[in-house]
Amino acid sequence: MIFRQLYEPESSTYTYLFACPDSGQAVLLDPVIDTLERDLLLLQELGLTLAYTLETHVHADHLTSARKLKHLVGAKIAGPAMDALPCTDFGVAEDRPLTVGSITFKPLFTPGHTDTHHSYLVADGGTGRVFTGDALLIDGCGRTDFQSGDPAVLYRSIHDKLFALPDDTLVYPAHDYNHRRVSTVAQERERNPRLGAGKTLAEFVEIMHNLNLPYPKKMDFAVPGNKKCGECPDEAPEDLRKLCDVSVQG
Amino acid sequence: MIFRQLYEPESSTYTYLFACPDSGQAVLLDPVIDTLERDLLLLQELGLTLAYTLETHVHADHLTSARKLKHLVGAKIAGPAMDALPCTDFGVAEDRPLTVGSITFKPLFTPGHTDTHHSYLVADGGTGRVFTGDALLIDGCGRTDFQSGDPAVLYRSIHDKLFALPDDTLVYPAHDYNHRRVSTVAQERERNPRLGAGKTLAEFVEIMHNLNLPYPKKMDFAVPGNKKCGECPDEAPEDLRKLCDVSVQG
Repeated sequence: MIFRQLYEPESSTYTYLFACPDSGQAVLLDPVIDTLERDLLLLQELGLTLAYTLETHVHADHLTSARKLKHLVGAKIAGPAMDALPCTDFGVAEDRPLTVGSITFKPLFTPGHTDTHHSYLVADGGTGRVFTGDALLIDGCGRTDFQSGDPAVLYRSIHDKLFALPDDTLVYPAHDYNHRRVSTVAQERERNPRLGAGKTLAEFVEIMHNLNLPYPKKMDFAVPGNKKCGECPDEAPEDLRKLCDVSVQG
Repeated sequence: MIFRQLYEPESSTYTYLFACPDSGQAVLLDPVIDTLERDLLLLQELGLTLAYTLETHVHADHLTSARKLKHLVGAKIAGPAMDALPCTDFGVAEDRPLTVGSITFKPLFTPGHTDTHHSYLVADGGTGRVFTGDALLIDGCGRTDFQSGDPAVLYRSIHDKLFALPDDTLVYPAHDYNHRRVSTVAQERERNPRLGAGKTLAEFVEIMHNLNLPYPKKMDFAVPGNKKCGECPDEAPEDLRKLCDVSVQG
């Protein structure tokens, strides 16, 4: 498997590139419109064909490049089936994995940050790799105060689905605000200050209710835009609207 | 590849188990005498044959179980050829990798913590894994104030050999004192407070000269013991001497 962890600095988002070396077919997980050009160049450099974009959830902090990538390079759009977005070509669910070449993305339903959030488990070499989106972050987790978020639901998702994976499973989050890149299930179980080291459900709910986080600055256009797989509402800044516009090339 | 990251709490050492699923042949990297029984049980549970133990360097903070494992299960002993230890069966060097079944340990000469220290690169799935011993740690590095340690040499080893690896190469250290488990080359290049983020050689040397670390409590018996692949000198505590004693089974 070809694998790259890519970073978008404005929203501190990790986009992941996977490709099957035999077929040259690639998948971008959680691609961001701001880094469209970088992602296209990388695909070109590596000689890959983008078969799919895949989303962990409807993001509130950035706009996806799924729609634009479909327009430019014909990549099909995949995401959680339960979002029922008309712009999606393939809806994933726990019993409906996405397979591209020799790579299978096994969906794990991990709601709580949003009510339809999925993580993806990818088998690779000596350990699995789990892409935890905004459910489990390194030493943290996604916020639960909008988009039908629910801390009790997130606690159960993380404990029942993610902490149940083998110790050495590599944890790759959708964000890190301190430039950390990877962790393991054992590490998060042991030392995640919100969820690990025996933290109870009640303690976690208390922590999440007292975070007092600022309102996400892109949410008002990102959520409706991402529900259309990356269409830019008029409220979005002009530079983003240009990037999203499918009547413009490049 | 079968892979396990194992932890010894007294010296905060990570021992790594690798095995080839086809042949059932296994390697333990940096095994610790204190966790001998756990390692033997794990090999038994997984139905593996321990072909080799392998060392990154002559440790000062714990005693290796290499000699005892050879006695108990016939595992050959591997380590840096330049140590020239008579008890070693296979000496590795940059042009002399260790291959067991389908797994190859590619040695990278990374002196500075000790003058013969080696890291090992293992290809596996979508990214390489580099086992950095006491050269590069997560957000840190090994000390350089004994065993011919030299901060300028360590700086060059890390920059020229380890930071030269691809971004997504997984970094597995021999120790972490905060229960972190894994990092990547990109992460350490970017945010290692001693060596990354553009820290100069002069800044690094200054940091290392001012660490004022305590004298390692096991060093006086661990270094001579490890030079004999895990023989216990008379100065070692009785419980360790019992574990090391090859006239005793189990």
